[in-house]
This record gives sequence, structure tokens and C-alpha cells, in this order.
Amino acid sequence: MRIPVDLKRSYKLLNHGPTTLVTSAANGRTNVMAAAWAMPIDFEPPKVAVVIARDTFTRELVKSSGEFGLSVPVQAQIEQTYAAGSRSGRDGDKWAAAGLVPFEASQISAPLVEGCVAWLECKVLPEPAIEDRYDLFVAEVVAAWADDAVWKSVAFNFVADHHRTIHHVAGGHFYLTGAWMGPKRRG
Amino acid sequence: MRIPVDLKRSYKLLNHGPTTLVTSAANGRTNVMAAAWAMPIDFEPPKVAVVIARDTFTRELVKSSGEFGLSVPVQAQIEQTYAAGSRSGRDGDKWAAAGLVPFEASQISAPLVEGCVAWLECKVLPEPAIEDRYDLFVAEVVAAWADDAVWKSVAFNFVADHHRTIHHVAGGHFYLTGAWMGPKRRG
Repeated sequence: MRIPVDLKRSYKLLNHGPTTLVTSAANGRTNVMAAAWAMPIDFEPPKVAVVIARDTFTRELVKSSGEFGLSVPVQAQIEQTYAAGSRSGRDGDKWAAAGLVPFEASQISAPLVEGCVAWLECKVLPEPAIEDRYDLFVAEVVAAWADDAVWKSVAFNFVADHHRTIHHVAGGHFYLTGAWMGPKRRG
Repeated sequence: MRIPVDLKRSYKLLNHGPTTLVTSAANGRTNVMAAAWAMPIDFEPPKVAVVIARDTFTRELVKSSGEFGLSVPVQAQIEQTYAAGSRSGRDGDKWAAAGLVPFEASQISAPLVEGCVAWLECKVLPEPAIEDRYDLFVAEVVAAWADDAVWKSVAFNFVADHHRTIHHVAGGHFYLTGAWMGPKRRG
């Protein structure tokens, strides 16, 4: 079940560096794109940075709407995530082609992606110079959600592999998020 | 053994989102700081973005030198990495306090960290506005290295857990980089 995540804890949904799905909507079109290059950049108010290449359909929709969603996909969605990173939404409905299903967000017009384990709704903080020079977008997180099958109030607790988040390396090869290591207790 | 990594492949050292150690040097002082908020932002020439908070000693050294190193620590260095993220280099030699050992880089004055499995030497592309607003630094990667115990010419191949890279969540809790998943073969 999707449950809200306190904004001040929302950085933990991305802090371990998983690959994300960037969703966007404008002018009656929506799109979904895979992005390994997304990370938190602040705690409170929470902010993120994400690379959205200049030639993508997502870039067009994000520039037009000033909003995007970040959904955090899992092992069971590796094929779909790779498909969402390997073709353009300009060439037709990428949702259907990639086998991904959108649902409505709460604060932004862009949808989010079903079957993921975490979601961040983001409003762009316009920085045209760095968008142009580096394809880098900065945004404030205005709402965050997690699947309570794996989100245990303050952190993920992955048990089944199909629920583990994924980390893209290149060419459709991913690492799963692995074992949890706590700090050593002293004294 | 440390071997050079082609610059055009150096993004793969960070693409899976591991936590990094940021090293810096200026005016006869050096420092090391943990940073989970570091990622590639371009392939060729390779660039990275990293958050370096304004009140840190690292920020002072990076602003002064225009350079930093990124070293990618492993499971065997979890305690040291957390220590490097929990105290300031202003309060004395953090290398010794954290139990980390520097070695000389090839293109930058900042050292790199022994025992890690990947290293990137970075020159800051000055962007004072985003440095000031978001603590976000953009840099070009000018040299890259990996440990050939785990780097197999084009990608990591982790076998022993102590060699796995780590992903910080919060408060000294990390995930190890987990299982490798290739794309499904079709046909």
C-alpha cells in the first residue's frame, strides 16, 4: 500500500543511489524515462538534482510544465526500466511500449509509476544556465510516497529480491540493492 | 592493483550510485569527507556533480584549489567512511581519526584514498551561483582509476563482500551493492 513519507525523510528514498523513472506531462501528453543520474541535494526543504538530456521528449515536457515525478523501480521492473531508457516517447506511447502503468500524483500533473516502491513529486527550481550547460535540473520535492511492503516508517527493509531497488551500470545491466549493514555497536 | 580507466568509461565507476569519499588539498592541508550525494552528469568529457556543504572544511579547500578527488569505498571501510562523514577536518587530522590513508593522485593536488576500488580526479567547473544556492559542485573528470581485483576492463565484478561498494542510507547504515542482473536474452 502507498503511504505518505514525511518530506524531511524523503531523501532516504534516493540516498542509496537507485535508478529512477522520470515522469512528465504537458499539453495532454505524458512520458516516462529512466534516469540513473538523480540524487538528493538537500534535506529540508528536500531537493533533488536530475540529468534530463536536451534531446529528450521528457525535457520538452518538463520545461513546459515545470514539474516531474521520480518513481523508484524494482527488480521485477528491470526490463521495463531498461525499455523506458532505450526509446523516445516522441515515437508513440512509451508507457505501453515499456509495459509501465501510470497513476495520478497528488501535487503535480505528471503521473507516477505503478509497481515501484517509492515516489517523489517534484517542482523545478528554474536554473536555465545549468539546464543548458549540463542538462541538470534542480527541483524541490513537494510530496513523497513509499510502498509499506518495503518502507518501514523510516527506512527501506527489503526482504524479497523482486522488491529490491536497482542500480543501472550500463546496457541494461543492473545491481540490486544488497545487504543492509548497520554501524558496529561499541562498548 | 590500481589500473587506469578510460575516461569515457569512468561514469561506470559511479553510475550505480555508491557513496564516495571526497578528498581535497590546499595551502598545505588536506581533508577527506564522505558524500553520498555524488553522481555522473556526462559521459564525454566525463563530468560529475557533488554536494559539498558550505560549512565544511572540504568546501574551503575545494574553493581554494578548484580540484577534488572521489574515491569509492567498500564494505571493509564502512566504519572509516562513516567516521569521515561525522566529524570535521578543521578539528585536526581527519585521516588519522577516521583510519583512512591518502596516496598521491596523478592530475590533481588532492590525494586519493587507499583501500577503495575506484578513484576519479576532478577539476571544478566553477558555477558560483549553484555552489552558493545548492552547495552543488560540477567538475570534469580528468583521470580515473580502479582496482583490478574488482574492475574487469569495462565493469565491476564483485565477488567477496568486503570488496563491494556501499550505499549510505542514514546514520551509518549502508546497503552493499548487491547481485548483478543482466538483461534478458531474447530469441
